[in-house]
Amino acid sequence: MGAADEEVMGKREKREEFNVIGTAPKMGEEEVRMVEEILGYRFINKDLVEEALTHGSFYLPYKPAKSYERLEFMGDAVLTCIVAREVFSSYPDLSPGPLTRLRAANVDTEKLARVAVEHGLHRYLRHKAPQLEAQIQDFMQAMMEYPIHSNGLVDPPKVLADIVESLLGAVFLDTSSSLETVCEIFRRLAAPLINPETLGKHPMSELYELCQKLKMDVTFLKGVWPENPKIEVLVDGKLVGSGNGQKKEIAQNRAAKAALDRLKETLGDSDSTALDHPD
Amino acid sequence: MGAADEEVMGKREKREEFNVIGTAPKMGEEEVRMVEEILGYRFINKDLVEEALTHGSFYLPYKPAKSYERLEFMGDAVLTCIVAREVFSSYPDLSPGPLTRLRAANVDTEKLARVAVEHGLHRYLRHKAPQLEAQIQDFMQAMMEYPIHSNGLVDPPKVLADIVESLLGAVFLDTSSSLETVCEIFRRLAAPLINPETLGKHPMSELYELCQKLKMDVTFLKGVWPENPKIEVLVDGKLVGSGNGQKKEIAQNRAAKAALDRLKETLGDSDSTALDHPD
Repeated sequence: MGAADEEVMGKREKREEFNVIGTAPKMGEEEVRMVEEILGYRFINKDLVEEALTHGSFYLPYKPAKSYERLEFMGDAVLTCIVAREVFSSYPDLSPGPLTRLRAANVDTEKLARVAVEHGLHRYLRHKAPQLEAQIQDFMQAMMEYPIHSNGLVDPPKVLADIVESLLGAVFLDTSSSLETVCEIFRRLAAPLINPETLGKHPMSELYELCQKLKMDVTFLKGVWPENPKIEVLVDGKLVGSGNGQKKEIAQNRAAKAALDRLKETLGDSDSTALDHPD
Repeated sequence: MGAADEEVMGKREKREEFNVIGTAPKMGEEEVRMVEEILGYRFINKDLVEEALTHGSFYLPYKPAKSYERLEFMGDAVLTCIVAREVFSSYPDLSPGPLTRLRAANVDTEKLARVAVEHGLHRYLRHKAPQLEAQIQDFMQAMMEYPIHSNGLVDPPKVLADIVESLLGAVFLDTSSSLETVCEIFRRLAAPLINPETLGKHPMSELYELCQKLKMDVTFLKGVWPENPKIEVLVDGKLVGSGNGQKKEIAQNRAAKAALDRLKETLGDSDSTALDHPD
């Protein structure tokens, strides 16, 4: 760190004493180094690491100065591009529909939140959002329950996915737009990438498809949020599954999954011809 | 063109005589050159130009071999990335919300379809879709009526936007992923890029905002499609505008625009304080 940088830091610290809006303690050099270690990349501009890992709440009760949202915007776009290129070249015969689903699954909130937790990036998040730690703990618990992508059965804290994107956006900027560097880092952090074989079906679409084959009606009964956060699935009027969750979408996905499991059990899961020809 | 290429073309033409699924006449060298001229880029792999400009219908009544969809998928992702970078660096103080709107407006169907027509790229589209020519003519007419981006008042043929994306995707692949080359071409073709000052408000949001200020209710009355493709806007129960269109969304946007124009006329457009303080 040069003399000019120290002067800048000195100024920042002085401004903080006066509670100037948006100032905040700098990220420690050691922490920056740990994050660089995880990414396998050494930043030219270390301030980008700090920006990528600073949540808007970190400045409370003051208005945030630089937080990760802009870098997340950049990283999201870069990720879209590199994962599109990845699936485009890996599957030369795949049409745009499946390519889009593959791309989306590899950059969705759950996949990215898993990446953050698996590599411990969440430990470097700078925030003052009281509920966040509990939400991260819940998600880590859920990851054990669903060791692979749950396809909508768990509710990952968006901030975890955000910091993966913001860090990749930071690398993109720090390298003057090197797609290759970002791609290499993402490949390593996110391995194994979801491929057509491991791309699970979403429980809602699977349930609808199955019931269409079986010529059975599906009805969802919704509880009243937040008192009774529960959704029940009726198939041909009979209760076959239910699901809870703070978010309606999650509860619905869980109910669909429970219903699917129940239906498959009833029909004999291994006897797939029974599903194809119900009569 | 070398002897090997001629042999390939000979084979293709022979296969076509037998009506083999998916074969089609190759794009002429002269046409490829004209497209390269428009893009300001000379392709290493000329087949990419053909693929980028071949619509699935071109092979009718046979199943398409290579058409532009995969390249469009790739180009869409590259465009997202370069336009995100463009707005990110041009507006260092803009938050992600406006950045996202700016990015979206610069790559939306209308903006890209305008790019295609302005540079005559539509003339090189290979298709056998009977209605397409008429739709392109209608759009060119509408472009004269709305010399700048109409914000949802016209209905551009998606295929026009698609070929801009597929051509940029083709350049991206042909250059082994050079964002810079794609960016340079897009900047030139799409100039002027929509910026915060020229980013028009969408008529629907503008109408809702205005009526909220005025504390007036907005109701949309929908006709029955396709017999009566019309939408009427009632403000505080009074008819203030209507719009037609084959697509409901377009009709609705036009109705909102008509209502807005009428309301502004009534309130006195220049007297903006009247809008801020209706009482």
